[in-house]
Amino acid sequence: MNFNYPNGKKYITKELPSEKTAGNKKNGSYSNRGMTLEEDLNETNDYYRERKIAVIHKKPTPVQIVQVDYPKRSAAVIKEAYFKLASTTDYNGVYKGKYIDFEAKETQNSTSFPLKNFHQHQITHMEEVMNQGGICFVILRFTKNEKVYLLEAEHLLSFWDRMANGGRKSITMEEIKQLGHYIPLGYHPRIDYIKIIDTL
Amino acid sequence: MNFNYPNGKKYITKELPSEKTAGNKKNGSYSNRGMTLEEDLNETNDYYRERKIAVIHKKPTPVQIVQVDYPKRSAAVIKEAYFKLASTTDYNGVYKGKYIDFEAKETQNSTSFPLKNFHQHQITHMEEVMNQGGICFVILRFTKNEKVYLLEAEHLLSFWDRMANGGRKSITMEEIKQLGHYIPLGYHPRIDYIKIIDTL
Repeated sequence: MNFNYPNGKKYITKELPSEKTAGNKKNGSYSNRGMTLEEDLNETNDYYRERKIAVIHKKPTPVQIVQVDYPKRSAAVIKEAYFKLASTTDYNGVYKGKYIDFEAKETQNSTSFPLKNFHQHQITHMEEVMNQGGICFVILRFTKNEKVYLLEAEHLLSFWDRMANGGRKSITMEEIKQLGHYIPLGYHPRIDYIKIIDTL
Repeated sequence: MNFNYPNGKKYITKELPSEKTAGNKKNGSYSNRGMTLEEDLNETNDYYRERKIAVIHKKPTPVQIVQVDYPKRSAAVIKEAYFKLASTTDYNGVYKGKYIDFEAKETQNSTSFPLKNFHQHQITHMEEVMNQGGICFVILRFTKNEKVYLLEAEHLLSFWDRMANGGRKSITMEEIKQLGHYIPLGYHPRIDYIKIIDTL
């Protein structure tokens, strides 16, 4: 259940009271129906773009191209290529003139989010974006219960540092609930993260 | 020759008096030595990132992957893939919290810049970025004389409209000189476009 303030702004709880039933148990209408996090975010970004709310795109998968054939009368065919590690996060764009930058990851775990889902290049990129005044965060999905959280990059960075200093290699569910922002799954858009940005 | 104001800001002319000799004729030190526009911009973006001036990356080339082999004990090999048309511009990032977005193109022409270097998807994307308050432009290089100009997206869009209404299919050199901003080739960074952004 959402509440609107008189100014039209949505009231957002970090964790809605109905959270436990908002997933795939509640008559199925908001359940995920097997969509991946990437599909949900693409749908959300299409929604934002069509309504002129924000312009955010997923970057193409970086590929190292080794061999290309140019057959007569048809399109060039890449015959040998390799996946490259991304040097940035996957999503970026503009919202009200501001730079938005995020990475989205999911886990099968249910009690913590493993930090191995990120790599050093991305962490460095997030630091650079924050230093430049950009809005930077991660979207974390727990696939088992379909719960999605937005966690600002500054928190991810401190957990990354904790790991680098010999601490645990994951973020506990408790920490995510405390520092992150719960995003209830919607129908259209699916993952309304801009609503959270407005409250930051 | 560049001049600095007392506040340390560079004095930027739209077209430097020394422009005609600033290219590959002037003792060769600033000449392009066969680098592509993409290489020059990558070098420039590295320069900005290392000095914490801005965080701007080129997006990976979009590729439609059709077949991938997973050989034992070695990396996945993409065996069949095709180049896709980009749905956005090639470069974006953040500068002082603001969203920066641009496309870079070069031409062998010397009297005008053909609009066929752009496609409708990119033009639509630039419109969306402008509507969202982002800073959007194109960097145009004339390869024959190595002259580089920054042209704000609003001007490109009006030339695109002129073409759509039956007008000429290119931007004349005169128009680019009048509306664009000349970027003298430098040594390090090669194409100092952020300096122009500061003056907009």
